[in-house]
Amino acid sequence: MLRALLHAFGDPPIQFALWNGDRVMGAPGDPVATLHISDRRSLARLCMDPDMEFGELYSAGRVEVEGDFGRMIELLYQGSARPVRNSVAIARRVAHWMHRRPSNTMDGSRENIHHHYDIGNEFYALWLGSTMAYTCAYFPTPETTLDEAQFAKFEHVCRKVQLRAGEHVVDAGCGWGGLALYMARKHGVKVTAFNISREQIAYARERAQAEGLSNVVQFVEDDYRNIAGQYDKFVSVGMLEHVGVENYPGLGEVIRGCLKPDGLGLIHTIGRNRWKPMHRWIDRRIFPGANPPSLAQMMDIFEDNDFSVLDVENIRLHYAKTLDWWWELYERSADRVQAMFDESFVRMWRLYLLGSRAAFTTGEMQLFQVVFARAANNQIPWTRQHVYQP
Amino acid sequence: MLRALLHAFGDPPIQFALWNGDRVMGAPGDPVATLHISDRRSLARLCMDPDMEFGELYSAGRVEVEGDFGRMIELLYQGSARPVRNSVAIARRVAHWMHRRPSNTMDGSRENIHHHYDIGNEFYALWLGSTMAYTCAYFPTPETTLDEAQFAKFEHVCRKVQLRAGEHVVDAGCGWGGLALYMARKHGVKVTAFNISREQIAYARERAQAEGLSNVVQFVEDDYRNIAGQYDKFVSVGMLEHVGVENYPGLGEVIRGCLKPDGLGLIHTIGRNRWKPMHRWIDRRIFPGANPPSLAQMMDIFEDNDFSVLDVENIRLHYAKTLDWWWELYERSADRVQAMFDESFVRMWRLYLLGSRAAFTTGEMQLFQVVFARAANNQIPWTRQHVYQP
Repeated sequence: MLRALLHAFGDPPIQFALWNGDRVMGAPGDPVATLHISDRRSLARLCMDPDMEFGELYSAGRVEVEGDFGRMIELLYQGSARPVRNSVAIARRVAHWMHRRPSNTMDGSRENIHHHYDIGNEFYALWLGSTMAYTCAYFPTPETTLDEAQFAKFEHVCRKVQLRAGEHVVDAGCGWGGLALYMARKHGVKVTAFNISREQIAYARERAQAEGLSNVVQFVEDDYRNIAGQYDKFVSVGMLEHVGVENYPGLGEVIRGCLKPDGLGLIHTIGRNRWKPMHRWIDRRIFPGANPPSLAQMMDIFEDNDFSVLDVENIRLHYAKTLDWWWELYERSADRVQAMFDESFVRMWRLYLLGSRAAFTTGEMQLFQVVFARAANNQIPWTRQHVYQP
Repeated sequence: MLRALLHAFGDPPIQFALWNGDRVMGAPGDPVATLHISDRRSLARLCMDPDMEFGELYSAGRVEVEGDFGRMIELLYQGSARPVRNSVAIARRVAHWMHRRPSNTMDGSRENIHHHYDIGNEFYALWLGSTMAYTCAYFPTPETTLDEAQFAKFEHVCRKVQLRAGEHVVDAGCGWGGLALYMARKHGVKVTAFNISREQIAYARERAQAEGLSNVVQFVEDDYRNIAGQYDKFVSVGMLEHVGVENYPGLGEVIRGCLKPDGLGLIHTIGRNRWKPMHRWIDRRIFPGANPPSLAQMMDIFEDNDFSVLDVENIRLHYAKTLDWWWELYERSADRVQAMFDESFVRMWRLYLLGSRAAFTTGEMQLFQVVFARAANNQIPWTRQHVYQP
């Protein structure tokens, strides 16, 4: 069984160590990591449904990883990207369809977002850095720190949409408000920022108050579908993952309704080279209802709403680096996380952070920034030189 | 009839002047242009099938345009972009389907390309400038001249694929060889360049000889489907328009077969915000078998061939500026064109150049440069800063 399982993942140099002392190797040579399996029942669960059960068993402490955990996940991603046709691959596909999630309706989205983002601002503050930005940072050089890189990302977004003092920006899915506050502080714009996470909005409002920006940045606890008004710029950083592909034409309609004729928009999102359902364990335990789109799928936002795509940048390796930072800060605070939650939570989030990092280093996931304008807008940036000026 | 026709194009400020002195206006006020129609039969043809017959009648001199010809075509594009549901719009759609062209098979492509590109290098030399580049130029500033802008485009492409001395590049659809020769001359690379236009290949070979580059730039008269070998970089500037959407997965397979694991590729193509069949008159008289894709359609090249899109840039307004230059040079040589061909040809190509310019100024057409790599390639550019370094 274990041999079939290892084969389904491309026979990687990973070793299984069973409770009875038995060992099974994928490829010969020194293993990158050894998976210790505590009992017969766990082994059976792992072999039946590895995608779901590895996370479950690891969180419960019934599987232990010795060696390079991050590299091991990379090898599993690389192995499963190969076209394998065997029973494990088929079972994986069937399981995916059996466990499909309900879509992101207004109520469904609120519940999905609550599940992930409302587990406690203090928890996220332990490892996101001072900006509380929970999206891919932008590292102009390898020496850039996490906080610097989050500010660099904010600035990158501002330049791409050619932000000018006095403009009014709408920020759809504003997180803890870092970008909205940066835009107002550094570029002198007015921002209306939407988010359905109660905890995030509360935090963002406090921060606006503390920075004396409450009069120019308005945080609205509401769904992007209820955006009203007219704006010079539309930005959305890290929301599209939660919108649901079926709602993309609707999102495009919302933007068409609120973006001025000469406006510019930017969507920053995790994506894929081609569509694939979300990893089931991540969907169940971490991000219910989330799904990173392919570029082709993203075009459903723009094509029928008379938009023109001006610029797409894929910075997936910057997300791997962002996750390096988060993971390191997270591990440093593991004791405090355990005190806030429990050991199983600590392990679950460790796997999520390491797994996400591997998804970006292996090319399993992408990070797209897409700039767009109305099709008839000729006030678009002439080149992209302005983004790269010192 | 004329009123219905004008209404189908959004009632633009355009005037019809008939042979008998009658005049019909779209919108009140001073007309941007007046269309003089020479006889009853021409009027009937124009009203029956305006998309096809305007070009036919203008070429034959049975319709004359007085006033701002370029602005008139822009108004017609803008008007027809509006969602109109009337008999003219329906007839237009039916006619599109009735006149579909055969696909770009190996033989079909050769015939289609011969039709346009083999009408005479001397003709093209009159108005393309010294580079003979017949694709969108890149104007870093408004003062850039056509030749400078074509060289800037070559350099823009080289930087985007991070060309390094000693590399081997494959150029699919190399035109008159300007880019291939530039790459070898300026960046010290070896280039293998494919093209099925006999006249272009002959010209390119002569030029390589004259520049002493025959040993490093090989011009191959063959279809992109026959590309063999392994290359560090894949570039294709202005070929995709002629490939046919149905052949995109096949093109992706060709690239997958010839691009080294750490290679980078770039495709430069006219595109659209969303798919639309080619303008029928352009398809019949100018570019048989051509069709600019939407970005979503372009993904058929990449998605199933394990590629990752790194960068998309839309520089449509640069194509409008390129066409300004071409049109001006063309008009200056109109007498020589007439001597080479006939008056009807002069008029046909005037309409084509002005119509193309209007397609880019109105957002009817786009110009996409797409940079891509294999999904697992981590030797991708870290940022795009290198493209914008002085």
